Amino acid sequence: MAKEGTAGVAQGDHGIAVQDRYPDDFAWCYGCGRLNPAGLHLKTYRDGEETVTAFRPRPEHTAIPGFVYGGLIASLIDCHGTATASLALYHRDGHRLGDPEPVPRCVTASLQVDYRRPTPLGPELVVRGRAVEVGARKVVVESELYAGGTLCARGRMVAVLAPPSMTPGAPPAPAPGT
Amino acid sequence: MAKEGTAGVAQGDHGIAVQDRYPDDFAWCYGCGRLNPAGLHLKTYRDGEETVTAFRPRPEHTAIPGFVYGGLIASLIDCHGTATASLALYHRDGHRLGDPEPVPRCVTASLQVDYRRPTPLGPELVVRGRAVEVGARKVVVESELYAGGTLCARGRMVAVLAPPSMTPGAPPAPAPGT
Repeated sequence: MAKEGTAGVAQGDHGIAVQDRYPDDFAWCYGCGRLNPAGLHLKTYRDGEETVTAFRPRPEHTAIPGFVYGGLIASLIDCHGTATASLALYHRDGHRLGDPEPVPRCVTASLQVDYRRPTPLGPELVVRGRAVEVGARKVVVESELYAGGTLCARGRMVAVLAPPSMTPGAPPAPAPGT
Repeated sequence: MAKEGTAGVAQGDHGIAVQDRYPDDFAWCYGCGRLNPAGLHLKTYRDGEETVTAFRPRPEHTAIPGFVYGGLIASLIDCHGTATASLALYHRDGHRLGDPEPVPRCVTASLQVDYRRPTPLGPELVVRGRAVEVGARKVVVESELYAGGTLCARGRMVAVLAPPSMTPGAPPAPAPGT
């Protein structure tokens, strides 16, 4: 779970995490859903023009002993990216976290992770992100992952508003043409 | 856990999974380490010129209800990619799984995942991969992830031989210059 102190940020948007404002139907994500009892419960906060999350890996999140599993790093960058995109769209529409309007839910269209150095297993990991392109339904997010202040990975991802076919209770999506 | 029948393949290399031949010190990965009791236990098999793994997500591996968490998809593509790279290097050196020589352990330098459509939560997921470039220490792997036979994601990743600093018991790596 993210901690204000360890992330070292003065949190904007009233100190509310993006994921705490997703509608209940969209709050079950393994990475960041507040209602998923088995999940990681990542929390994304605004910090000025950036966003920040923090997570301390558990011992089982090993790649090679002593180092963090790359899939977890991809997951942190992914969930933090979709939340950063959601916040960017919410801000664009004139809202701040805490407003009554629902926060939009984004999903990932593409994800790129560059592993710059092995990430040590032990320190809390901090991911900082920012929306570098904000379109009507699409947001490009860039981010960096740090362990003990050392840059270990960079991410770039494209998030899009969740399509109607992913709304809980919606009919299944048709088979793609591709 | 991968199942021969559900992956629908005639397994080469004596039907041995790459991960079952990693040295014990390198068999603790959360995604694919046979010795990690909390892990996913992915298994990568050779199938002709390709490799294949299969995994059935658990209910908690949700993104939005009804769909698979993107971080898990990235993890499958990542672990299957490093194993595919290891196998490519092992084959290049004239070995087959079951030989006494240790299988080399690769780690991820970069990972790209394109989410082509929402991945339904329920069917077994199958990832097929292949090494498209094999260098001295670096392998490029491309892969596709299917759910119930439908293409849901594509991956491209660069794997490299694990550096000496990641060998269990080795001294920590120096701080990078970047």
